[in-house]
Amino acid sequence: MLLDETATGVFTIAATPFLPDGTLDLDSLDRMVAFYEEKGATGLTILGMMGEAGKLSEKESRIVIDRVVTRASVPVIVGVSAPGLAALKALADAAMDREAAGVMVAPPGHLRTDDQITGYFQMVAETLGETPWVLQDFPLVTGVQMTAKVCRAIFDACPTCVMLKHEDWPGLDKITTLRRQEAAGARRVSILCGNGGQFLLEEMIRGADGAMTGFAYPEMMADVVRLMQAGDEARARDLFDAYLPLIRYESQPGLGLAIRKHILARRGAIAHATVRRPGPALTPETLAEVETLIARQEARLAALG
Amino acid sequence: MLLDETATGVFTIAATPFLPDGTLDLDSLDRMVAFYEEKGATGLTILGMMGEAGKLSEKESRIVIDRVVTRASVPVIVGVSAPGLAALKALADAAMDREAAGVMVAPPGHLRTDDQITGYFQMVAETLGETPWVLQDFPLVTGVQMTAKVCRAIFDACPTCVMLKHEDWPGLDKITTLRRQEAAGARRVSILCGNGGQFLLEEMIRGADGAMTGFAYPEMMADVVRLMQAGDEARARDLFDAYLPLIRYESQPGLGLAIRKHILARRGAIAHATVRRPGPALTPETLAEVETLIARQEARLAALG
Amino acid sequence: MLLDETATGVFTIAATPFLPDGTLDLDSLDRMVAFYEEKGATGLTILGMMGEAGKLSEKESRIVIDRVVTRASVPVIVGVSAPGLAALKALADAAMDREAAGVMVAPPGHLRTDDQITGYFQMVAETLGETPWVLQDFPLVTGVQMTAKVCRAIFDACPTCVMLKHEDWPGLDKITTLRRQEAAGARRVSILCGNGGQFLLEEMIRGADGAMTGFAYPEMMADVVRLMQAGDEARARDLFDAYLPLIRYESQPGLGLAIRKHILARRGAIAHATVRRPGPALTPETLAEVETLIARQEARLAALG
Amino acid sequence: MLLDETATGVFTIAATPFLPDGTLDLDSLDRMVAFYEEKGATGLTILGMMGEAGKLSEKESRIVIDRVVTRASVPVIVGVSAPGLAALKALADAAMDREAAGVMVAPPGHLRTDDQITGYFQMVAETLGETPWVLQDFPLVTGVQMTAKVCRAIFDACPTCVMLKHEDWPGLDKITTLRRQEAAGARRVSILCGNGGQFLLEEMIRGADGAMTGFAYPEMMADVVRLMQAGDEARARDLFDAYLPLIRYESQPGLGLAIRKHILARRGAIAHATVRRPGPALTPETLAEVETLIARQEARLAALG
Repeated sequence: MLLDETATGVFTIAATPFLPDGTLDLDSLDRMVAFYEEKGATGLTILGMMGEAGKLSEKESRIVIDRVVTRASVPVIVGVSAPGLAALKALADAAMDREAAGVMVAPPGHLRTDDQITGYFQMVAETLGETPWVLQDFPLVTGVQMTAKVCRAIFDACPTCVMLKHEDWPGLDKITTLRRQEAAGARRVSILCGNGGQFLLEEMIRGADGAMTGFAYPEMMADVVRLMQAGDEARARDLFDAYLPLIRYESQPGLGLAIRKHILARRGAIAHATVRRPGPALTPETLAEVETLIARQEARLAALG
Repeated sequence: MLLDETATGVFTIAATPFLPDGTLDLDSLDRMVAFYEEKGATGLTILGMMGEAGKLSEKESRIVIDRVVTRASVPVIVGVSAPGLAALKALADAAMDREAAGVMVAPPGHLRTDDQITGYFQMVAETLGETPWVLQDFPLVTGVQMTAKVCRAIFDACPTCVMLKHEDWPGLDKITTLRRQEAAGARRVSILCGNGGQFLLEEMIRGADGAMTGFAYPEMMADVVRLMQAGDEARARDLFDAYLPLIRYESQPGLGLAIRKHILARRGAIAHATVRRPGPALTPETLAEVETLIARQEARLAALG
Repeated sequence: MLLDETATGVFTIAATPFLPDGTLDLDSLDRMVAFYEEKGATGLTILGMMGEAGKLSEKESRIVIDRVVTRASVPVIVGVSAPGLAALKALADAAMDREAAGVMVAPPGHLRTDDQITGYFQMVAETLGETPWVLQDFPLVTGVQMTAKVCRAIFDACPTCVMLKHEDWPGLDKITTLRRQEAAGARRVSILCGNGGQFLLEEMIRGADGAMTGFAYPEMMADVVRLMQAGDEARARDLFDAYLPLIRYESQPGLGLAIRKHILARRGAIAHATVRRPGPALTPETLAEVETLIARQEARLAALG
Repeated sequence: MLLDETATGVFTIAATPFLPDGTLDLDSLDRMVAFYEEKGATGLTILGMMGEAGKLSEKESRIVIDRVVTRASVPVIVGVSAPGLAALKALADAAMDREAAGVMVAPPGHLRTDDQITGYFQMVAETLGETPWVLQDFPLVTGVQMTAKVCRAIFDACPTCVMLKHEDWPGLDKITTLRRQEAAGARRVSILCGNGGQFLLEEMIRGADGAMTGFAYPEMMADVVRLMQAGDEARARDLFDAYLPLIRYESQPGLGLAIRKHILARRGAIAHATVRRPGPALTPETLAEVETLIARQEARLAALG
């Protein structure tokens, strides 16, 4: 089951669970996969930034791929961004051999000009051969700014690029522009959105197909996407607003991952909130703030019915 | 009335209103000052990034200073960040001659090491003489990261630095650290927070004295600060949450300024939403999203009573 | 006498001389202008980065413009880069009112995509009206990377852009590409090169019209350009190589300006080597190294005859 | 034979040779190791930036380590910089198992504050255990600026850090400062310098122990270091100056690697000049310029005797 441009719903960005000593926690990995599916994920994305991919050795990356693909009943996308094409290719091959649905690639941070960016992704596409892949557009972290024109040049040059992970900020008008290009005849791609879900409502209005991010309550994203696709915007907004104070709190760069792992552990999805070094530790003040936000969130959800 | 470390409440970051042809709109400037004060501002900050300071000529900057200081009945802080100390000094002198309360300085983007940063601000303090000043800590835009240790080194070396404009992200633990240093004997500074108000609740819990940001509904900030200072956290949270969907939407970098000017014009605070070139234009989709957010916000506020 | 695309030779990037207390040294400014002309400058560029433009107040900038244009018998280009178009326009007007030959503009550091860059310079051209201007391409300092394609798009969109200050690194192939475009029918622009003269020989081979940089021995640049234009490459190389150890030493970023001012003072072109704060101080070790390099340079030049 | 603070001479930064199709060229690797030793290398550094380390898969990296360590009769340092500590550790273990002399680590590009930098390297040192390592200070490429104070803090905190690869620019005063700290009682470290050898003369005067860079004529570095250590500065300068035009030409970022491989192939050290994608191709103009520079260099060396 290979990824294609019809992908929709919620591809949760999966965390990578560790034991307190920093080694991989494979039992938690299994439990977490089940948790995400139970909460409505239509796909999983592993070894992304939130998955602490950069902190794993190549061997560990392969173990995670193997385990998740084996356990998941939904399509799995594997982040394979690497400083060079050889490492990218090696990881992509490992993923596709294990029957992943596709891979995801972010641009290396030194790319600046339009031609550098499109040139890079053409090499990526050649390197990947027939493997379907996701273009990750996350300028806040990569420092690489891709206009809608550049994204489209990549889609045109690379038929195997079937999805945009949209995480530009601001980026709503980019979705509108891409969908207009398609209305005018350009090839359709799936657009799933990141940014912690902060703009999910407006992203759906602009034409996104769903979410690809790691908010610790994936059911919010699944419900909002479903309601928006069903035309029930009012209900989608009520639900979204109920979660928003926590979405906002999780959106703190760097800290967000630690908060999400804390909440995933609190919800029983993983055994330990361990973040691999170097990574932030949550202060008692932060933990208290999270508790307050969760308590109020639960009250609002109860009131919504 | 000079700025000192007891400053509290809401120092609204003021927009700079323009006529449709891009020239200064001084009538709107007057009206906007009145609007901000009416909505609870305890101070004003002009010629900040949101005030499009970088797009004004030196002459225009002086006109804005003159006009606002003349009309305002609250203290006025003037942003004087400049590539060099001579221009910074010239603008600061113009501000203080007009009886501004103090000035605000952000670090130039090339500063990297701790010593470069503290060294720069020591030169700033020498240059400013007795003028009280605000340290602006906004790494998302300046690219300069100042730890709590570096901030404290600046406070220690520069007695005229009386306030931190806190806009680090994540930055809540920095407030806690600074307040702990003070509890252990360090000199107190006023801490007013930015980031569009997105973390105002938690910032107050951590020990901030209020807000310094440009959210288009300054009354939200005034009310939240007042309620938190009065100990009514539950009510403060209800109010904050009612505004949060719009706070979030305004937080889009670059676009946020145009959205704020649009809302200020919509509320009658200024005549035109004009942003000087180069600046973003709001698409019909964006305008529609803002309308929806305002309508829902008004409904929530009505429900709160 | 307005700047146009036939400009050739050496437009020396002029320093701004200061007295030991940091105030403008106008007598030295006069002497320095005479010195540059005597050493073969066919033009002068003032208020560039090496001119410490960012450290001057607007008033001081006007004084420098006035003085240099009055004293110089060669065309004067004025650097007018500014965070916003209003300040850029104000300074450009001041320059052209004083009969400068044209102005020079570098891109603000936040520009990334091709469209952002060309869009910015189209606004600059509109703002400047009929004033001829120089496109400054200096990615090491600005962080903005412009391909030959983007430069050409700017030349095509802006007939008033008559010169490229070429300072990309590596940038030799860019010159070749631009000259090929012109051989194929594109509009010719003057190309003067920077980078402290480190690649002047190869730049001339590739088709440059001369140099625009601040090496403290402008006669080297004048002679090399003259010899290359006269077809005497062997002699040009001998001369260039004789100066190269010092060219290299001056090329140290940040420090280079202080070294150049030291040598200019040593040569009697200015009275004091003062660099405005914040700026580097030269250590005794550095001064000794410069002396050795100059002594060996003089010996080599004597040997060359 | 483990690396320690007495290391001196020239640790050549080794290229990684590829066949025209981009696969590893192990025969050339052998020949290149012999070439470097023949030309006076007292050590080798492999898998650095010039070694295209980022473009190798983990498996290829291990093959290169194995081959070079087996063939070399001088100590071998292995670059192990990686986005995370697990990959760094895996590669370092592979290197030390094969009897490398030590490893080299550059800071990840997101580090900014002094505490972040020292904290990172303390984790590195803990991760590496007893393995001796080299601190790589190359801000032009990494974007991370380390003051002499920060370097010293790292040396103090990490006894296993025995060498600084010095590549700051400007960086001469940093060497002087570090050596003064040692004269005042701080622990000595070996300092080998990079930057393509452009400042080797002055670096030796300031107290460096030699060079660690990839200039295609390693004999220049070996001779200059030997002559400087023997006190024959005049002869060292004559030799250095004879090579300087080419040193300068090789110093072009990005392009330099391709030029070096071209010259290494021309000298018979490797079979093919292939650079792995993405990498620059040399134009005919560039190749012609290199030929001219080599011809003049040979003439100057012949004249020197």
